[in-house]
Amino acid sequence: MDSKVANKKKISKSALQEKKGIPSPKSLSSNVAKTIRAQRKKRLSVDDLVSGILAGNITALSRAITLIESTNPAHSKQANAIITKCLPHSNSATRIGITGVPGVGKSTFIEAFGLHLTSLDKKVAVLAVDPSSSLSQGSILGDKTRMNDLVKNDHAFIRPSPSGNSLGGVARKTRETIILCEAAGFDTIIIETVGVGQSETAVHSMVDFFLLLKLAGAGDELQGIKRGIIEMADAIVINKADGDNIKAAKMAKVEFNRALHLYPSKASQWSPKVSLCSALKHEGIADVWHMIEDYLKTTSANQYFETNRHNQNKFWLLQTIEERLKSNFYNAPEIKLALPIQMKRVEAGEITPFAAAEYLLSL
Amino acid sequence: MDSKVANKKKISKSALQEKKGIPSPKSLSSNVAKTIRAQRKKRLSVDDLVSGILAGNITALSRAITLIESTNPAHSKQANAIITKCLPHSNSATRIGITGVPGVGKSTFIEAFGLHLTSLDKKVAVLAVDPSSSLSQGSILGDKTRMNDLVKNDHAFIRPSPSGNSLGGVARKTRETIILCEAAGFDTIIIETVGVGQSETAVHSMVDFFLLLKLAGAGDELQGIKRGIIEMADAIVINKADGDNIKAAKMAKVEFNRALHLYPSKASQWSPKVSLCSALKHEGIADVWHMIEDYLKTTSANQYFETNRHNQNKFWLLQTIEERLKSNFYNAPEIKLALPIQMKRVEAGEITPFAAAEYLLSL
Repeated sequence: MDSKVANKKKISKSALQEKKGIPSPKSLSSNVAKTIRAQRKKRLSVDDLVSGILAGNITALSRAITLIESTNPAHSKQANAIITKCLPHSNSATRIGITGVPGVGKSTFIEAFGLHLTSLDKKVAVLAVDPSSSLSQGSILGDKTRMNDLVKNDHAFIRPSPSGNSLGGVARKTRETIILCEAAGFDTIIIETVGVGQSETAVHSMVDFFLLLKLAGAGDELQGIKRGIIEMADAIVINKADGDNIKAAKMAKVEFNRALHLYPSKASQWSPKVSLCSALKHEGIADVWHMIEDYLKTTSANQYFETNRHNQNKFWLLQTIEERLKSNFYNAPEIKLALPIQMKRVEAGEITPFAAAEYLLSL
Repeated sequence: MDSKVANKKKISKSALQEKKGIPSPKSLSSNVAKTIRAQRKKRLSVDDLVSGILAGNITALSRAITLIESTNPAHSKQANAIITKCLPHSNSATRIGITGVPGVGKSTFIEAFGLHLTSLDKKVAVLAVDPSSSLSQGSILGDKTRMNDLVKNDHAFIRPSPSGNSLGGVARKTRETIILCEAAGFDTIIIETVGVGQSETAVHSMVDFFLLLKLAGAGDELQGIKRGIIEMADAIVINKADGDNIKAAKMAKVEFNRALHLYPSKASQWSPKVSLCSALKHEGIADVWHMIEDYLKTTSANQYFETNRHNQNKFWLLQTIEERLKSNFYNAPEIKLALPIQMKRVEAGEITPFAAAEYLLSL
């Protein structure tokens, strides 16, 4: 076997390896990887990692996140201990969710937006929730080279979406990563997600401000209504509003404002805004941040900010319980055996679905 | 105490008493009620009721449905025995769901549609799912006088929505009632629901054909998209398309056709249709039934009809399991005690919602 291939196999589970087909960015040279691997061998204790995180050490932060993402039970135990110790130092950042379909320019927008924030002396962490990435191998943020300038910025930290079989699992890992990033001193957390499936609802339930990125003339405003995304948005930002596109972007702004009027006023007392930007030309980016500042003022004054975080905690508590109740039930060996049999009896008209459910619950 | 009031109190749990403020229809004279009460005292056995139902006896059917709706455990046991015996004789009717906001003319439409069906020698049962009725005291179908002609028809059977604390409970009772009605020889089951909350999803999951009743010029086509109702509809029927309203109704037809084009083609291979009617003038009613016949032809030929019923059974089986898992958990005394304590610890930043959930699951 080629030694290169063997080497590749050996490190295939390492977070230091990029996904197939995506070239490693320059920032991850083989020397850097070697150094990090050597450091790992030191096996820092939970306390070492916590004090590293609280001191703002990025290596400690990254290694703790790797423990969160690990499926090894010993790692999970360590991760839980770290999270518990970081928890009192978290909860202080502004959490911003950004969604939009592929092609809308999310990476370009986040880079421009992140650079604007760092220029204001903010410390920015960029995370992602993409439950499809483990299937499609096309993790968002996986290709850090698309945020070439932000990745090199000392006040920015970019971490791709954790992989996982369930959205619940992926979302949990991201929620826990937010805690560590906040403890490490990041005051602005950006969470990216793709405009597919239920991942937007999950991200909406972990952020303070939810931003929907759109293109002019895509004609999909009704899709956003249909999928409930417009209902969740605190802002709709129309990207690529430059050159010949400006007229169409202005028309789209009118249409989206109309769509927003379909909804009753929000519990936050915030009226969602529509704005234009060109992430490529860094135009309209400062406006987006001004808008978020306004939002924070409004929702701090009326206490919605705190209420919302309280409700989000409650949501994740109940959501975790309910997911686990289901998976415990359906994965029990006796249920795996009996469920298809009962289903056949239902189909044969021997038993109602309700009676079959009661029988299964009695096992 | 006035003897009239005392008498009222005594029979307050009886299905023979109408809700407050709604006058009893003429068909329920005090003599009829007396006769029925006398018959009840006979305490017919499960086998008596089953043979009555299979012979098409409406009194036996009504009494068995009352057992389904009862919260008395002894009655539930009898009800389950009756359902099991009726089950092999069910599954043969066409099940049609009808939804629409209050004021759209549902009662008038169902009366006209039901009378058309009985004129074609069909036997029609009209049921309802309205989980709000027990709160609002305004049960749909409660006021049978609104279907004056249909209620007197020998080939029609009308039953108001069962009451219940949960949509799941109400839906279950209606699903079980469908079984009994089919065993009693009803070949067309109409299930009405109000255009609020999740009850439409529940009804959609128990019918073959789902009809959305609309008004022209209500301007709420986007509301239907937003709430996912249009996505479920096999037909949109615009009611009150008469007189000065005809032009607006034709325009609404164009708009709804446009809205329907937002959705990918259905698994049923049926393209949802938009049609006009005037329930009051009995116009366009035959067209609706023709459309449903077309639907039945299409979905029988491509086997979607059977697949859909299979999927519905699976849905109700899993839905019942999941509702019960949750209610068992949250109603356990140790959880009722511990949940608020853990919630406070989450709020105080002492524990993550995930760790709190795990602790609660370990109790």
